Amino acid sequence: MKTLLLSKEQVGRLISMKEVIGTVEEAYRAFSGGQVIQPDYIGIHLPEPRGGEIDFKVGYCKSNEIISMKASSGGFLDNPTAHGVPNGMGSVLLFDARSCALICVMDGSLLTGLRTGASGAVSVKALARKNARKITCIGTGKQARMQIRAISLVMQIEEIHAWSRSPESRECFKADIEGEFGIPVILADSKQQAVEQADILITTTRGKGPLVEASWVKPGTHIVAIGTDMKGKQEFEPEIFRNAKIVTDSNSQCIDKGETWHPLNAKIIGLDAIHGELGEILLGTKPGRENDEEITIFDSTGMAIQDNTTAEKIYRNALENNVGTFFAFL
Amino acid sequence: MKTLLLSKEQVGRLISMKEVIGTVEEAYRAFSGGQVIQPDYIGIHLPEPRGGEIDFKVGYCKSNEIISMKASSGGFLDNPTAHGVPNGMGSVLLFDARSCALICVMDGSLLTGLRTGASGAVSVKALARKNARKITCIGTGKQARMQIRAISLVMQIEEIHAWSRSPESRECFKADIEGEFGIPVILADSKQQAVEQADILITTTRGKGPLVEASWVKPGTHIVAIGTDMKGKQEFEPEIFRNAKIVTDSNSQCIDKGETWHPLNAKIIGLDAIHGELGEILLGTKPGRENDEEITIFDSTGMAIQDNTTAEKIYRNALENNVGTFFAFL
Repeated sequence: MKTLLLSKEQVGRLISMKEVIGTVEEAYRAFSGGQVIQPDYIGIHLPEPRGGEIDFKVGYCKSNEIISMKASSGGFLDNPTAHGVPNGMGSVLLFDARSCALICVMDGSLLTGLRTGASGAVSVKALARKNARKITCIGTGKQARMQIRAISLVMQIEEIHAWSRSPESRECFKADIEGEFGIPVILADSKQQAVEQADILITTTRGKGPLVEASWVKPGTHIVAIGTDMKGKQEFEPEIFRNAKIVTDSNSQCIDKGETWHPLNAKIIGLDAIHGELGEILLGTKPGRENDEEITIFDSTGMAIQDNTTAEKIYRNALENNVGTFFAFL
Repeated sequence: MKTLLLSKEQVGRLISMKEVIGTVEEAYRAFSGGQVIQPDYIGIHLPEPRGGEIDFKVGYCKSNEIISMKASSGGFLDNPTAHGVPNGMGSVLLFDARSCALICVMDGSLLTGLRTGASGAVSVKALARKNARKITCIGTGKQARMQIRAISLVMQIEEIHAWSRSPESRECFKADIEGEFGIPVILADSKQQAVEQADILITTTRGKGPLVEASWVKPGTHIVAIGTDMKGKQEFEPEIFRNAKIVTDSNSQCIDKGETWHPLNAKIIGLDAIHGELGEILLGTKPGRENDEEITIFDSTGMAIQDNTTAEKIYRNALENNVGTFFAFL
C-alpha cells in the first residue's frame, strides 16, 4: 500500500481554475443530491496572546468514494518572520472509502482559495443575468483576485469597480488585475459608488457589521457573498434579503453561520424565504434566475465536500501525469 | 520546511510500552490540569451494506505545544481479502502549535492499541492494591494482550484468569500470554468463576449489555473498564457502581458515553458519586485507593490527548535516532 505525496508547488501545477469550477459544481450537485456525509467541522483556537487557529473539515462523497480531511490554519501572524513559513497553511488527507486506506497526503494551502474562488463562478453561471458585464468587488485581497480569476472563465467582464478600506490594497489590486486580465479596474471613492455600478457584486471582506446598504443595490444584481462563514461576521444590511432570491451552498450552514443568519435573526425573512441550494439549481430541481429584475444572493460558507472533489481531481491528475512521490506508511 | 514521515514498522520500533505508560500519564496530568484543548471527535459511518467507520480525533497540549490529529478506521471486514490491507488503519498528523506547521505524518495503526493498553497500567499504579497478584480478563482479543503487556511492567502478575465468548480465542490467548510472559493462564468455565478470582478485573469486550454481575466482585478489586467507549456499549451490571470508587479518564466523556453512563442513567448513582479523574490522582489533588477493601473502577473512554503525547514521543525518538524520511510539502 503506497500513499502519494504532493507538495504545494505540485498541487499548484496540477489543476486549473477551469477544472476547479467543474469540481465545485460536482460538489454542490453531490451535496444537494444526498450523496455526501459531512460532519460539522472541529477547530482549535490557540490561546491568546499568540492567537491563530486550525480547523479540520471532513467529508465523504458517495459518487467518488473518497473521504477527505483538510486541516487548515490561519492567523499565525509572526510565522514569516519567526518561523519562515506562511501565516496560514493546509494539509489534506484522502482515503479510499472502500477500504479507508490513505491514498494521498497533499499540501492544502492553495485548496481553500481555489475552491472558494470557483464557488462564485458557479453561482454566476446559474444566477447572474446573461448580459452582466460589470463586477464590483468590496474587498480587494487574495480571495477577490480568485473570484475574478474564476468568473473571467465563465463570462465576459468589461470592467471592475473596486473598494476596500485600505488605499494600498486597492491600488495593488488594480495593478494586478489589469496586468493579469487586461480588464480595467475603476477604484471607487465610496462603497456606494462601487455598488451602484454592479451587475455582479462580490464581497470578500472580514466584515463584522453591514458594509453594503440595501438601497444601493440595483434590480437585476447578482450578489456573491463570500466573507461571512462564521458567527460574528456580516457584510450586508439584512434588509437586502427581503425581496431577493436567496440561494445557499448549504441551507443548514447558511442558516447557522452564513450571511443569511442576519435577516433570519432580525425576522426580516423566514426560513421559507430561502429559495434553495445552488446544487438544487444545478440538478434542475429548482429554477435559477427567472427574470432580469430580480436580485439574487449566493451565500457561500464553504464546505468540506468542495475540498473533497477538488483534491480528488488533483490526485487523479497527479497519477495521470506521474507527478508526486510515493511513500509506504504500511 | 520539512515533514517527517514514519511507517507503521518504524513506529513499532520507535517506542516501548514503558514509554507509552509515561506518555499516557503525561496526557492524564495535562488533561486534568487544564493544559488541553480537545474538541469532540467527528466520524463518518460508511453506509450499509459495506459498513466500516473512520474517526478523527484532534487535541492540543499546551505543555508540549503539539496539535495532533488521528484518523482511525475500523470494521472494513473484507479489506484483507479484497484490498490487501488490514480491516482497520490509522494516520496521525502532528503540527507545531507555535506555527501550525506540519512536522510529522506517521502511520497510526498501532497507536490506539498502545495508548489504550497503557491506560490500564496507569490506573493499576494509582488504584490497585499493592498486594494484587491475580488478573482476570473478560475478553481475550488484541486489547486484552495489550493490557497484560502494559500491566506486567507495573506489577508482578502471578496468574491470569480468562474468559471469552469464543473457545478458540481463549485457547489462543492462553498460548500467547504463557509464551510471551511465562504467566500461567487459567481458562474459566464461566465469567463468574473468572471474576471471583480477580484482584484486578479487566474488561475489553464489545459488550452491549451487562457481562459482569455486582455480586461476583470481591472487596478490594480494581476494575479496568475498557470496552465501553460509546453509547450502546455496556459491560457491567450498573449496581456495581453503587459503593465503588469511580475514577474516569475524562469525567465529561465517561458521563456521556462511558460505562459510568449506565448507573447514572439508572439513577443508581448521582454525579457527586464520581470520585474524579485519573489525572487528578496523578496530580495529587485527589486521593487514589485509601484501603484494601474498596472496589475501584477506572472507566476508560480514550482521549485524543493520549494520542498526542504518545505520537510526540515517537516523533522525538525518531529525530534522536535518525529514523524516518523527510518530505517538503511546502
